[in-house]
Amino acid sequence: MKDNQKPIKNGFKFPEQNIKTSITDVKPDELSTRGYRQEDLITNLSFAEMVFLLLKERLPSEREAKIFNHILVSFCDHGVTPPSTQSARLIASSGANINNAVAGGLLSFGKNHAGAIEKAMNLFQNSIRTLNLENTDKGNLNKRIARLAIEIVDKYESESKRIPGFGHRYHDKDPRAVRLLDLAILESAIGPHTKLALVIESVLSEKKGVCLNVDGVNAGLLSDLGFDSQLGLGIFMIGRLPGLVAHAYEEMQEEEKFRRFCDLENIVYEGFKNRDIDEK
Amino acid sequence: MKDNQKPIKNGFKFPEQNIKTSITDVKPDELSTRGYRQEDLITNLSFAEMVFLLLKERLPSEREAKIFNHILVSFCDHGVTPPSTQSARLIASSGANINNAVAGGLLSFGKNHAGAIEKAMNLFQNSIRTLNLENTDKGNLNKRIARLAIEIVDKYESESKRIPGFGHRYHDKDPRAVRLLDLAILESAIGPHTKLALVIESVLSEKKGVCLNVDGVNAGLLSDLGFDSQLGLGIFMIGRLPGLVAHAYEEMQEEEKFRRFCDLENIVYEGFKNRDIDEK
Amino acid sequence: MKDNQKPIKNGFKFPEQNIKTSITDVKPDELSTRGYRQEDLITNLSFAEMVFLLLKERLPSEREAKIFNHILVSFCDHGVTPPSTQSARLIASSGANINNAVAGGLLSFGKNHAGAIEKAMNLFQNSIRTLNLENTDKGNLNKRIARLAIEIVDKYESESKRIPGFGHRYHDKDPRAVRLLDLAILESAIGPHTKLALVIESVLSEKKGVCLNVDGVNAGLLSDLGFDSQLGLGIFMIGRLPGLVAHAYEEMQEEEKFRRFCDLENIVYEGFKNRDIDEK
Amino acid sequence: MKDNQKPIKNGFKFPEQNIKTSITDVKPDELSTRGYRQEDLITNLSFAEMVFLLLKERLPSEREAKIFNHILVSFCDHGVTPPSTQSARLIASSGANINNAVAGGLLSFGKNHAGAIEKAMNLFQNSIRTLNLENTDKGNLNKRIARLAIEIVDKYESESKRIPGFGHRYHDKDPRAVRLLDLAILESAIGPHTKLALVIESVLSEKKGVCLNVDGVNAGLLSDLGFDSQLGLGIFMIGRLPGLVAHAYEEMQEEEKFRRFCDLENIVYEGFKNRDIDEK
Repeated sequence: MKDNQKPIKNGFKFPEQNIKTSITDVKPDELSTRGYRQEDLITNLSFAEMVFLLLKERLPSEREAKIFNHILVSFCDHGVTPPSTQSARLIASSGANINNAVAGGLLSFGKNHAGAIEKAMNLFQNSIRTLNLENTDKGNLNKRIARLAIEIVDKYESESKRIPGFGHRYHDKDPRAVRLLDLAILESAIGPHTKLALVIESVLSEKKGVCLNVDGVNAGLLSDLGFDSQLGLGIFMIGRLPGLVAHAYEEMQEEEKFRRFCDLENIVYEGFKNRDIDEK
Repeated sequence: MKDNQKPIKNGFKFPEQNIKTSITDVKPDELSTRGYRQEDLITNLSFAEMVFLLLKERLPSEREAKIFNHILVSFCDHGVTPPSTQSARLIASSGANINNAVAGGLLSFGKNHAGAIEKAMNLFQNSIRTLNLENTDKGNLNKRIARLAIEIVDKYESESKRIPGFGHRYHDKDPRAVRLLDLAILESAIGPHTKLALVIESVLSEKKGVCLNVDGVNAGLLSDLGFDSQLGLGIFMIGRLPGLVAHAYEEMQEEEKFRRFCDLENIVYEGFKNRDIDEK
Repeated sequence: MKDNQKPIKNGFKFPEQNIKTSITDVKPDELSTRGYRQEDLITNLSFAEMVFLLLKERLPSEREAKIFNHILVSFCDHGVTPPSTQSARLIASSGANINNAVAGGLLSFGKNHAGAIEKAMNLFQNSIRTLNLENTDKGNLNKRIARLAIEIVDKYESESKRIPGFGHRYHDKDPRAVRLLDLAILESAIGPHTKLALVIESVLSEKKGVCLNVDGVNAGLLSDLGFDSQLGLGIFMIGRLPGLVAHAYEEMQEEEKFRRFCDLENIVYEGFKNRDIDEK
Repeated sequence: MKDNQKPIKNGFKFPEQNIKTSITDVKPDELSTRGYRQEDLITNLSFAEMVFLLLKERLPSEREAKIFNHILVSFCDHGVTPPSTQSARLIASSGANINNAVAGGLLSFGKNHAGAIEKAMNLFQNSIRTLNLENTDKGNLNKRIARLAIEIVDKYESESKRIPGFGHRYHDKDPRAVRLLDLAILESAIGPHTKLALVIESVLSEKKGVCLNVDGVNAGLLSDLGFDSQLGLGIFMIGRLPGLVAHAYEEMQEEEKFRRFCDLENIVYEGFKNRDIDEK
């Protein structure tokens, strides 16, 4: 069926049957990804560079590769505290396959968990976009970013909302965020989005003692690397998967299976008095 | 509740409520994984090394890190052909979140898809274990591996089964397998498990023209690196996730949503003649 | 830890450890759900009534039970055409367990698939709420609903959007919708929400030949039954699960496994010319 | 492509592109399932009968419909105790969509959770099959079933294994099992598989005080109804889904989100002393 002969019925377009892709070209005995033969990628790229190539459609520069590698490592694990890790372990403990456990972990990501990175990327990118950087004098850039930061803090404060990427349930100073920033400075990789994140932090930490967390710093760095905010969760998942696998495997090694159920005394039943079925 | 005071009821042991882990130690403003502070891991490790540390509980040597990196890169993508990738794209095309698409991809791994790596690791590890390498003269090791290989080929042939890790639906010579072996030879990283894989290949390819695939080579290399076969699918998932994210994202960028449904003419209904409900 | 002693840290509240529920009370040798002993529910309720009790926290009247049963049956299956069913079959064909296949099917529900029912429930409930039915004269209710319907059609038309619950990719007249309405009329179960749906249909069908689909009718009926729109997808999933199980099982019975991959000639590679790795 | 012209490459058969099904026939404005028009099914069937039709490819008799309805109702919910329900709630509490929560619940079913029903169906069906019921004198059937039961108990005892379908973590007498048996007796629906289950129980309860649980009774009843053991988990999922939806919805209604993380004091870190990164 040709592309331009799609039938239309009740307002729905019917797609062609062929699958289009520009990721990997598969031919007998040949595989090339984003234009490079896979055997050459296997020989020459680090795993972080391969991820960059897949998602950005080009190879990273040396500096980009370093920063991107730091980002992936920084996402690796936060122990048993996140609900995603708990879900993965809970599923593993019931004797399910490791892919079930890991998939169940990924399903936990939602509005309240791991959503901050995309929200922060959106916030930083939308804000910086208003500066219209390409067409204007960059002389007073720092001042304009500072003004943006103050506006953002005011806006969120007036709506009593948390700014995504700031504050952490377990840490006053997220040690990953601190080091990521040090490394980015060392590698001269602080662009306007991370700069904005830093100024917001300086305002917030003075006002409320709230600092950038790992999501916030990485949202800035990924935005400066040119990543679409829609890839934020995807990159987080790539970084976190090794941790989820390690936790599911650890759980599978435990002798006692099916171990995370409740003692009845930990359940509070808040429901109904006994009712007779005849009332129906 | 103390560990040794677990109540037993109807033959079921009740676990303690605490969660034990030896992966990451979480304290306020401090995170350490497998004994290292996360900020130092962010600074010093490549992403592949971080994965190794999480799963093997120790840092890799330089050679181990190289080989493990090659393995992860080699798993990255096989285009739109695998059912896992198709599931991920299908789910993405229906407007679901990217984590749903990726999780759905992972759920496809089963007996017939991505199962080969663990099966091949088991085969190689169980076979090499019979050689009792630690306690015996290694002089005639090659001969004994060759004998093992012939026995394995004969056994699978007599049962009309495929040996896991050999043959590929789309490739006569899997280009990833060929290069991985070249690199392992160059880096003097061929241990007994990969040697066994190679001898099986030499027998099989002569008999039937069937060669090692990417799973078979990596099963050998991972076994030589000392990985438990139960981690085979986990490592594969870590390597493949970037590809799944790239495909889900590519699908999400397409203008037409919900695009992988069928034309009615491609469905063959093999069922029932019309029946009247009264026959009930 | 007491309920009112939750620590607060960095703006995050820490919840108590106990799990609260008002669904089922579990005691040794006793189970009661929504106030009824489960053994009495097993004896006395139809499966549809049990679903109603779980979700609405009370038993249905006879008429409610009939309508709710029709709704659940009407969701059962739409053959192999929906992406959810295709995902389930694709996953089953790769040899995964049946729960993986079914879970993968559920993950397909998103903005573009099975989202219509909750959107239609929201639309109908928000619109009818503006009529302030409890406090006003119901005499000219029909007129006011008619006015609402016209406003809705105009609004969606001016924004070039489809009204959720109307039109079907494969049907001009969705046979399930037609019969559900007939039955609801017969059972005098048409409340204001379904009435609104019907008037919108009469306007739309005249203008564009577009009719109510199964989601639209059920959104009306469920709203008239008093269901929260947030339960729309949940009820749809309960109704559709038997179909997904049947499809996954049918796929598992097929002799040839792993069958939904592509012929290479059906893939269009739109990507890159070969590039040399040195350009990095 | 014709069915008999499938290309073969490296030992892999390539399937035809068409999708075959005998569940639902989809035509414009027409839907029929297992030979019946869906509108007639909506009018005439209870939800339990519709499930039966989908899975057994025929309508149930009146007695079969009653028993099958009891089975589905009996699976509905066991409060917050099962890991599947806990996974669903955990995922819901992180702000994910309801289908994610429910899918995550399904992924928990594995060797140690909800696996008993298929194992018990296999045990009962394989055992009864040895009796070769169709060709032999049924006179002394009860004696032969009794002998089977004793053999089974002895075999599991000698291997120190639990017989699937017997014993319950929270109940000495599973109230659902007791009532299901009463109803089946009342409806004269005890066939040889359930009889076998009952005799095993009488032996086991005398020896160890262990009784049939809901899985064991339903495994017997479903086997007597002629269901393939491969459908055991599918039927359980259909029965349990309403409970999972109710729990996910209850969790979503709670004010505090993201609530099931740990207090750090409930985590026992059993891992490493601090190590210096230089040891690498």
